[in-house]
Amino acid sequence: MPTLKQIVEDDHTPAGRAFALLIQSLILLSMVEFSMDTLPNLPDGVRAALKWFEIFSVSVFSIEYILRIAVADSRVAYLFSFFGIIDLMAILPYFVGLPFDLRSVRAMRLLRLFRLFKLARYSAAVRRFHLALRIAKEEIVLFLFATIILLFLGAVGIYYFEGDAQPETFGSVFHCLWWAVETLTTVGYGDVHPITVGGKAFTLGILLIGLGVIAVPAGLVATALAKARQLEDEGVEP
Amino acid sequence: MPTLKQIVEDDHTPAGRAFALLIQSLILLSMVEFSMDTLPNLPDGVRAALKWFEIFSVSVFSIEYILRIAVADSRVAYLFSFFGIIDLMAILPYFVGLPFDLRSVRAMRLLRLFRLFKLARYSAAVRRFHLALRIAKEEIVLFLFATIILLFLGAVGIYYFEGDAQPETFGSVFHCLWWAVETLTTVGYGDVHPITVGGKAFTLGILLIGLGVIAVPAGLVATALAKARQLEDEGVEP
Amino acid sequence: MPTLKQIVEDDHTPAGRAFALLIQSLILLSMVEFSMDTLPNLPDGVRAALKWFEIFSVSVFSIEYILRIAVADSRVAYLFSFFGIIDLMAILPYFVGLPFDLRSVRAMRLLRLFRLFKLARYSAAVRRFHLALRIAKEEIVLFLFATIILLFLGAVGIYYFEGDAQPETFGSVFHCLWWAVETLTTVGYGDVHPITVGGKAFTLGILLIGLGVIAVPAGLVATALAKARQLEDEGVEP
Amino acid sequence: MPTLKQIVEDDHTPAGRAFALLIQSLILLSMVEFSMDTLPNLPDGVRAALKWFEIFSVSVFSIEYILRIAVADSRVAYLFSFFGIIDLMAILPYFVGLPFDLRSVRAMRLLRLFRLFKLARYSAAVRRFHLALRIAKEEIVLFLFATIILLFLGAVGIYYFEGDAQPETFGSVFHCLWWAVETLTTVGYGDVHPITVGGKAFTLGILLIGLGVIAVPAGLVATALAKARQLEDEGVEP
Repeated sequence: MPTLKQIVEDDHTPAGRAFALLIQSLILLSMVEFSMDTLPNLPDGVRAALKWFEIFSVSVFSIEYILRIAVADSRVAYLFSFFGIIDLMAILPYFVGLPFDLRSVRAMRLLRLFRLFKLARYSAAVRRFHLALRIAKEEIVLFLFATIILLFLGAVGIYYFEGDAQPETFGSVFHCLWWAVETLTTVGYGDVHPITVGGKAFTLGILLIGLGVIAVPAGLVATALAKARQLEDEGVEP
Repeated sequence: MPTLKQIVEDDHTPAGRAFALLIQSLILLSMVEFSMDTLPNLPDGVRAALKWFEIFSVSVFSIEYILRIAVADSRVAYLFSFFGIIDLMAILPYFVGLPFDLRSVRAMRLLRLFRLFKLARYSAAVRRFHLALRIAKEEIVLFLFATIILLFLGAVGIYYFEGDAQPETFGSVFHCLWWAVETLTTVGYGDVHPITVGGKAFTLGILLIGLGVIAVPAGLVATALAKARQLEDEGVEP
Repeated sequence: MPTLKQIVEDDHTPAGRAFALLIQSLILLSMVEFSMDTLPNLPDGVRAALKWFEIFSVSVFSIEYILRIAVADSRVAYLFSFFGIIDLMAILPYFVGLPFDLRSVRAMRLLRLFRLFKLARYSAAVRRFHLALRIAKEEIVLFLFATIILLFLGAVGIYYFEGDAQPETFGSVFHCLWWAVETLTTVGYGDVHPITVGGKAFTLGILLIGLGVIAVPAGLVATALAKARQLEDEGVEP
Repeated sequence: MPTLKQIVEDDHTPAGRAFALLIQSLILLSMVEFSMDTLPNLPDGVRAALKWFEIFSVSVFSIEYILRIAVADSRVAYLFSFFGIIDLMAILPYFVGLPFDLRSVRAMRLLRLFRLFKLARYSAAVRRFHLALRIAKEEIVLFLFATIILLFLGAVGIYYFEGDAQPETFGSVFHCLWWAVETLTTVGYGDVHPITVGGKAFTLGILLIGLGVIAVPAGLVATALAKARQLEDEGVEP
């Protein structure tokens, strides 16, 4: 018979798999419930049903939280781990009155769904992904840093060109930062855009540099995953 | 003399090639006809001609469907295959009255055009593409899953920031999901965009993560195709 | 002393280099002239100066055209080559009255500027680029074909969802094709966008597939260039 | 005891590290101050505090500038180096009256923050990045050149189609260039977009080519970084 620890923490036993599946289904359902609850014009009956389901799922999550603490090798480590804090935040608001709404944070529990990938086929893919991140980590950090610097330089530059022409939308470097974000990521909502010749020329310049910087991390992940696959094929113990 | 089966299923005989070419041309033409038929202000003469062409092409497709069933090794396998269902949907509405319009589904027949690539040069490229998908399949699934989780987390996050400020467009998590789709794919129509400082800062954060996730599958396909080419050069039987 | 043929066709002699530089500078300047001439509110003096410069440059290009014919190994081959036709189109409108304006076509002469890359350092890069195109050509064609099919399927799909809701902008498959172009390329001007729930869900679906198709050719070029570099390093004669 | 030269130029001594950290923190803070100073509605007290901080930071930067000149191996080389000019521009406006505002240029000092990456872990990543740029430099230049040619050809082409239909926004090749920039980079603000059938078809054509050109440099950087990592692993002295 499986021990409680095996049920809660070990996905490889049938009981553990059933427990994990139950929790993950409930996470998914509680997210559907949370999303539906934000709909403005729900019939009272539906809203009441959602409320009952919420109470049920929070109860299960509370029991799960207590069980995880009980069986953890190191309780302190679990309590202050990423998922330990997320798990607490998902249930806390129901027990103590809080001055701010933590319900959005519950969505982070969705990250627990990645456990689904612990299946044989996908556990290799997850391992390769971790290896790829280790291979390319420094370059990714370097390019994220360059991206942030570039966003700021873009904001200062466009402020110089558009600040006077469009004081409503480019009135400070912070306003301009929003333009830099939506331009360099190529989202381009169109709520802010340059209208002066200088601003447009500057946009061209910063985009020519920016496109070659911002798209690099995705390419790094892709090539590092290819490398990780190759290391695996060669039987190199990463 | 070629058998009926060779004509219908085998592109390597002259008769089979002629049959395939006829069907594929007709698919293309019937798509042009379908597209033109949606134009609002057509002269009656043109619309009548389109109607006649539709009757002709559906007749040919019906005969083709019967032939395919007749010559199939396993009739059940063909009937319930992807193309078997598409082929049926392309002709069904003309024989039985249906409560909904299936004509759009006919466009899926265009996928049959990929058979054009069975030419010598391109059959190698298609084989490499299948090999590449097999190489990178798990990673692609992993990243598609991560994309969907990210879209949902983005929707929940922006709901927290913009839900009160713009109840019309960010009024529920489902509304916000639309924002997440057009932002993380960098389409950015501009019909919905954050206006609060918190929402804009959150957009920056989710985009910095999102750009590094959503663009990865394309990179994976590209590197896997390079790998497939290399395996082929090395004469490794995939 | 260099022969006329060396001057006109051979960039490796000093005289040939001077001739090439003269023509290329003039191409660039005539493009600046053409662009300025489209400005609506130019002073008469400037417009007259532009006119004089146009006459001068067309004269030089005409002499160049005659020289190229004169020294060509095969005159017919030059006359019907890509650049032979472009060169003719750049001067023809000044000698015969034409029912349509060919001046825009002159811009194609800019492609002649790629000759600048015949410098030692860059001729290797151009050679690698040609090799890369040869390596990945079939895959690029395959993905461009898939892109076009996808654009059409996207147009038909969105017509099904938005055709009735927005007859002005999604009123036919051709209208919808424009939406498909600006959405799948992630340009997203915002002049057309779905408003129905079905249309938005379809947009998500087609984008998840589309992003993984449309960005692949660029990745293929990049990986093929890496491969070409590697072949060169290994001294493999491509 | 460290010499003055070691403190100012050498990050590897404790004193040098402290000096570098002080300057870099001050650069960051002076950028925050500069950004806040552009906010339109600041209380007088805050603005005064910002002014005092500006005087303080410019004083420190002036002392730093003098020290850098004093300890430089070659003073002329420093004075006319990229950072030498930026450092001067960051302080000059406070000592001489200038007819134009150089404060934006100060933001370039942020590039000094890349020195943070001289830490052991990241100095390898920076070295790999430099190696990658050297590997792919010619191809990157080639593709940037192709991008600029393509932007111009796109502008001329759309002018031909949209010039008459939308004289306000597509009235000259220069106006059209702005459209080409926001379209080919896929930003797509939506302030300018084609409305004619010809213009829309041309947009599709130029995008199919453009997407395969503009995204290549980022892919080149990614694959070259992968190559640089591989060279390092093989112990090849780059």
